[in-house]
Amino acid sequence: MASANDTITKLIRAAGSAAARESESEAEPEFSMAVEWPVTAKIGLGLEGAIASETHIGYVNGPKGRLSYCGHDIFELAAESSYVETAYLLLFGKLPTSPELSAFRAKLNAYRDLNPETLNVLRAMPVKQIHPMVALGAGVLALAATDEQANVTTVEAETEAAVRLIAAMPSITAAVARLRCGEEPIKADPQLDHSANFLYMLTGSKPSDEFSRILDVSLILHADHGMNASTFAAMVVNSSLSDMYMTVGAGIASLKGPLHGGANEQVLYTLEEIGPVDAVKAWFQKVRQDRKKIMGFGHRVYKAYDPRARILKPLAAMLAERNAVTKPLFEVADKLEQLAIEELGKEKGIFPNVDFYSGLVYQAMAIDTPIFTPIFAVARVVGWTARVLEYLQNNRIFRPRATYVGPVRVKYTPIDQR
Amino acid sequence: MASANDTITKLIRAAGSAAARESESEAEPEFSMAVEWPVTAKIGLGLEGAIASETHIGYVNGPKGRLSYCGHDIFELAAESSYVETAYLLLFGKLPTSPELSAFRAKLNAYRDLNPETLNVLRAMPVKQIHPMVALGAGVLALAATDEQANVTTVEAETEAAVRLIAAMPSITAAVARLRCGEEPIKADPQLDHSANFLYMLTGSKPSDEFSRILDVSLILHADHGMNASTFAAMVVNSSLSDMYMTVGAGIASLKGPLHGGANEQVLYTLEEIGPVDAVKAWFQKVRQDRKKIMGFGHRVYKAYDPRARILKPLAAMLAERNAVTKPLFEVADKLEQLAIEELGKEKGIFPNVDFYSGLVYQAMAIDTPIFTPIFAVARVVGWTARVLEYLQNNRIFRPRATYVGPVRVKYTPIDQR
Repeated sequence: MASANDTITKLIRAAGSAAARESESEAEPEFSMAVEWPVTAKIGLGLEGAIASETHIGYVNGPKGRLSYCGHDIFELAAESSYVETAYLLLFGKLPTSPELSAFRAKLNAYRDLNPETLNVLRAMPVKQIHPMVALGAGVLALAATDEQANVTTVEAETEAAVRLIAAMPSITAAVARLRCGEEPIKADPQLDHSANFLYMLTGSKPSDEFSRILDVSLILHADHGMNASTFAAMVVNSSLSDMYMTVGAGIASLKGPLHGGANEQVLYTLEEIGPVDAVKAWFQKVRQDRKKIMGFGHRVYKAYDPRARILKPLAAMLAERNAVTKPLFEVADKLEQLAIEELGKEKGIFPNVDFYSGLVYQAMAIDTPIFTPIFAVARVVGWTARVLEYLQNNRIFRPRATYVGPVRVKYTPIDQR
Repeated sequence: MASANDTITKLIRAAGSAAARESESEAEPEFSMAVEWPVTAKIGLGLEGAIASETHIGYVNGPKGRLSYCGHDIFELAAESSYVETAYLLLFGKLPTSPELSAFRAKLNAYRDLNPETLNVLRAMPVKQIHPMVALGAGVLALAATDEQANVTTVEAETEAAVRLIAAMPSITAAVARLRCGEEPIKADPQLDHSANFLYMLTGSKPSDEFSRILDVSLILHADHGMNASTFAAMVVNSSLSDMYMTVGAGIASLKGPLHGGANEQVLYTLEEIGPVDAVKAWFQKVRQDRKKIMGFGHRVYKAYDPRARILKPLAAMLAERNAVTKPLFEVADKLEQLAIEELGKEKGIFPNVDFYSGLVYQAMAIDTPIFTPIFAVARVVGWTARVLEYLQNNRIFRPRATYVGPVRVKYTPIDQR
């Protein structure tokens, strides 16, 4: 019998093959590595089409539905690599040798346990009243306390802070998740790898190899994604030479929004709201009639099926088969996808994105819905810090312009004459 | 004898007249309200010249050294208005009537005292080890706890959160400043106006009318300034429909950097480092030789004397006359300005900016140097929230592109073959 790991690898390879076949057959322009596709003729609202930087880190081909990190296709990384290895790749531009990987793992391990200052702040945060992303943001700021180099903005010092944040953010997220439920945070298990330890710190028990691998794959898929809003927010913040902790705090702030990382949480609420699978059609028609957005569908850059959703969907399906809570929700999601693709897919280029299936995967692993977006942050911190570090090497403060359309030459009138 | 207030108003009016005379005589293009000047032909590093939004809020004319809020010239507002009135203007687009101003003041007053949750988090933050901007950021996140509407992203709910932040940020800053020195935070005095109360909460004693007015003028000058990095960071964060607390947290994160608000703190360290006034010339020549930047000089948009520095300089001069610590530093600053303008002014358009004199003003009012940048944040929160609220009315997530210049089609090699 194949191990859980082998099964997962096979599912990912199959998704990759399907993506390759479909993107080959599409009548799209020649695959271009110059600029993320599609290129827009003029700058639109939300800086659409504006080029904010050059990068060696990641590339999204929207019309073809392809994603690569440092030239490595996402399907291959998800099937063959690990999150820790992928993090190294994004931060340092190449896959690590065996000694490099061991040293990187040892460093992550050493930074996992939270200092008392951070735990104190998390305990002081009213975690039951606020969104866990807000508590995660405060925890990240508290981390700065025991970094004597926190205000040193050389590439070396900020790289070290980045590694520390990659290691500590799972621990902060787990502590917040536990405090929310009135449980005590637990210490890291140095025997466990990054994703397995994260699940252990979240749940308090050693996770199965299957769950650990699936979380690891999901973290790989969420690690970087071009000039998305949270990455861009982090780059804007660090461009004043602020510090890596506040920079990552801004990434967390941006990711929280339902138009960005917060969508994975909203998708699950939507699926729950729809009800049984035979209610999907009526719900979909009503949403279309009201011209509302459907969470988890469509993307600024992708005009094809999101490659990350291609990988997460079969994993969600596999887990849903064995989970009575997730199974009916997966069926609703699958039906909704069919309807949406029929009506919105080919015509408008609206397909499921990464957020549409990630929540179902996490739910099937018994993770609370409000923790879905913090998990996204735990993964994306690599993309944030890697791109911030890259920009820092040729830094210039971000300072665009606005077109002024307001009143001019208004005279001040004393208050009694207004 | 003229009151302190009258003297300050006269100094500001004189600065305004001088600015008007000089900008008239300059051979600059016709004053244009279309786009912040100068317009750049193509987008440069740091999104220089890219238009990120339309605005009714503020306008910077770089070559002429002019700044206006909602069409009101900054010199007039500084001379005739108050910070609270200016905050109303920026948020709501017009100066308030008497009942509107009373209602706005009452609301600010009600939001001044910090909830226990926020004070608990500030006490838990290791305020002696971290920069006060980091503690201010955490305090702002904690504020979200007692706002039941914190995650409601309608313009109405976010406007209310903005008013709350404008009222509470002075209290958080004062609490952080006091905790840093081992002193207890104190409660607001409802009899005092915004700036007077802020000084009271910082120092523990009722401030003079002169100090209150000068701080109020400085807050007016720092309230808004086009698409600066922190305003832009806040807009990027809120564009995912995050929330106003995390949005302002991102503004604080960006402002902290020495290339932005952190410069006012760095200017003071520079002035202290230079030593006596007769050491300025040698110091300046060394810095020029080493091609280093001088903190507090030059600006992405201004290619003329910053109108805010025109106002702060005579106020700093007035205060320095009566302060034995500030006086020699002011003399150093004045000398450095002369040398820098001679060599960099006309030729390169490098003149003192707002950060060059604000620190001297604050120091003369006995405020600790690390609190200078938090004071900037206390003022700028109006600009952040006003522009975020304006963008929210026609929101689209900020999502620019990157040009990919990295490797392509890299195959995954197993670790033992690397």
